[in-house]
Amino acid sequence: MTQTCVVGIDPGLTRCGIGVVRSDGGTAVKPLAVDVVRTPADIDIAQRLLAVAEGVAAVLDRYHPEAVAIERVFTQHNRNTAAGTAMAAGVAATEAARRDIPVTFYTPSEVKAAVSGNGRADKSQVTAMVTRILGLVDQPRPADAADALAIAICHLWRHPLQQKLRTTQSTSSLVDPVGVHPLPSSKEP
Amino acid sequence: MTQTCVVGIDPGLTRCGIGVVRSDGGTAVKPLAVDVVRTPADIDIAQRLLAVAEGVAAVLDRYHPEAVAIERVFTQHNRNTAAGTAMAAGVAATEAARRDIPVTFYTPSEVKAAVSGNGRADKSQVTAMVTRILGLVDQPRPADAADALAIAICHLWRHPLQQKLRTTQSTSSLVDPVGVHPLPSSKEP
Repeated sequence: MTQTCVVGIDPGLTRCGIGVVRSDGGTAVKPLAVDVVRTPADIDIAQRLLAVAEGVAAVLDRYHPEAVAIERVFTQHNRNTAAGTAMAAGVAATEAARRDIPVTFYTPSEVKAAVSGNGRADKSQVTAMVTRILGLVDQPRPADAADALAIAICHLWRHPLQQKLRTTQSTSSLVDPVGVHPLPSSKEP
Repeated sequence: MTQTCVVGIDPGLTRCGIGVVRSDGGTAVKPLAVDVVRTPADIDIAQRLLAVAEGVAAVLDRYHPEAVAIERVFTQHNRNTAAGTAMAAGVAATEAARRDIPVTFYTPSEVKAAVSGNGRADKSQVTAMVTRILGLVDQPRPADAADALAIAICHLWRHPLQQKLRTTQSTSSLVDPVGVHPLPSSKEP
């Protein structure tokens, strides 16, 4: 079985969550690390972005992940913070690209659906599921830390499925999606 | 008189304009360079952002500007490209911060008003004014190149005024704004 390390990033200027998880090929996911880069609102945006870049770079250089997953920013929500969040996401993606690590973006509902089976799950449900999936004793805090781990888990569980579906589509054969890669969330009560 | 070199950036993924101008202390502005980083839409966003980062970095390392000015992204316009534009802006700002170069963001109407006296000027007016201000024989093409130069000019003309006003406010003395730093655009027909 192939080990895969994934870094999940919940982009933001005030708090940028960075979660590192590992899979040994099955659906079990192990937590490796979690960090939250915090920057004060009263310093220049460029300095805040640099802190995010350096925080992400430090994690990538320590864990050498096979993939980076970043939450996609929706600019229609909370316009004031959306541009800052998008800038932080861009900076994180660039640090990955600089190291030849592939980046995938996921929408918040894709992440929620992957870990909880419900694309409209609230923050506490996502945190509870991440805690359970990773077998943690304590819930990751703050929510940005749990979200970053959820994004990494989402990539581990969705990506092989997407790759397979893409191959399937290009060869025009039919595959029962349920048989490709059962999502553990379906086993949850 | 102090020479000041400013790099203006019109952020974008498809085309990112980068303009370099110099002032010798007065309102005259000299063009130094202009470049447009282009990335194809069919490669990964992270790779496109890395190309923007490398393009900006190359200009900063060549010209060692005193300041970087970036157009502020408005996320309510064209939501599809806004996130990409914001990400490119963030990446450019980070490259400046990495080199300890201060970054200022300007809204499109601040830039238009600075070079043409009209915050609602269209692209052709901005291009025409940039061509005239910089004494260029040919109009800079594409529009992103002219915009990047306009952003740099905007910073050169607005920034000393803003600094002065800030000092004025903090010392509570009164200053006739017209007397502080006459804007050349007022001399235009």
